[in-house]
Amino acid sequence: MEIPVERRILAANEGLAARNRERLRASGCFVVNLISSPGAGKTSLLERTADALRAGPDPVSFAVIEGDIATEQDAARVRARGVPAVQINTRGDCHLDARMVSGALDRLAEQTDLAKLDLLIIENVGNLICPTEFDLGEDAKVVVASVPEGDDKPSKYPATFLRASAMVVNKIDLLPYVDCDLDRLIGDARAVNGRLAVFPLSCRTGEGLEAWIDWLLAGARQTTRR
Amino acid sequence: MEIPVERRILAANEGLAARNRERLRASGCFVVNLISSPGAGKTSLLERTADALRAGPDPVSFAVIEGDIATEQDAARVRARGVPAVQINTRGDCHLDARMVSGALDRLAEQTDLAKLDLLIIENVGNLICPTEFDLGEDAKVVVASVPEGDDKPSKYPATFLRASAMVVNKIDLLPYVDCDLDRLIGDARAVNGRLAVFPLSCRTGEGLEAWIDWLLAGARQTTRR
Repeated sequence: MEIPVERRILAANEGLAARNRERLRASGCFVVNLISSPGAGKTSLLERTADALRAGPDPVSFAVIEGDIATEQDAARVRARGVPAVQINTRGDCHLDARMVSGALDRLAEQTDLAKLDLLIIENVGNLICPTEFDLGEDAKVVVASVPEGDDKPSKYPATFLRASAMVVNKIDLLPYVDCDLDRLIGDARAVNGRLAVFPLSCRTGEGLEAWIDWLLAGARQTTRR
Repeated sequence: MEIPVERRILAANEGLAARNRERLRASGCFVVNLISSPGAGKTSLLERTADALRAGPDPVSFAVIEGDIATEQDAARVRARGVPAVQINTRGDCHLDARMVSGALDRLAEQTDLAKLDLLIIENVGNLICPTEFDLGEDAKVVVASVPEGDDKPSKYPATFLRASAMVVNKIDLLPYVDCDLDRLIGDARAVNGRLAVFPLSCRTGEGLEAWIDWLLAGARQTTRR
């Protein structure tokens, strides 16, 4: 009995996601759905990304939608970096859905011109499982793993790694202090999904950020050319 | 339309949880439902707990039920410590439910005498949100936070901290290397739930484990006296 209901919910979500996608593609915006466990460093990655894009040679119009069960903390952190950001509070729900993002786009339009946006990153609720099922209208899902979580997550949570276009491995500065074999982590992720782009980096030290930024900029360029 | 379905699912789960509780209370077993983000260190905590209980002065009959979306890795790790353990694979589901635990108890009974069990720890799927809703028949929920996840999780995922009897804060050996204010983390958790027992510890160094073990043994003693 649960399965038909789940199918109906997902089908309704897909319709709304298609509308979000149409709305954002019209402006040539590259849209990323950022998924990870709680505390892997999604918001720190957005802060670093904002700083790097601002310091880069080409102007990039970047905005953020933040998803959390509760609090405005993350949107405030991103806005403090000069990036337009709106917060979704799901009030208990374990993932974002396309309807929530549609409402957030309306609010974001009050802060910035959506038609000129090059890059939109949607930070999902901290959860390595449920967000994967719900299309928000993104061009790419990106999963953020982190070194202190250990190297066994791709085999234990395969669906999220399978559906992602890229994996950021954050907190590589902690490699000397924890039991995490980076080669095993990347190898296991690629065993699940051979096409995964992989970016080991540290939001604390800045190491490895350039390749991640280049990937985002390439996505933004490709989307603009569509 | 989603809400009545959710209520029916939760009501059915509650009936099965009550049956699990009755079955385990008959043998005076203290049952813990262990909840955390992926990679906070639930399985490492079980390994350390197994070693400490075996080295302690009193014999304690301890068993484990492991919950994961995929793989038998965690049950194998626990069995390697000499502890009877069965693995549940949810095959995509983001949480354990009472029906899964009921089946796991039947399988566990093939490895150990449930009637003589003092302590059963059920390691839930790595997810700080969804497992909280589903009673498994436990006496206590325990949430495992970890230092590298940062100090903002109790305010961002309040339901899990509200319903827990105790919080383990794992990986305190990483405090010098990450931006995590332990006092803020504990203060925020206690602001959500003033009755929370708190155990900062490191599964890597063993620091702080005694208080956690004492809490488990006290729970096992109280449950036996019922």
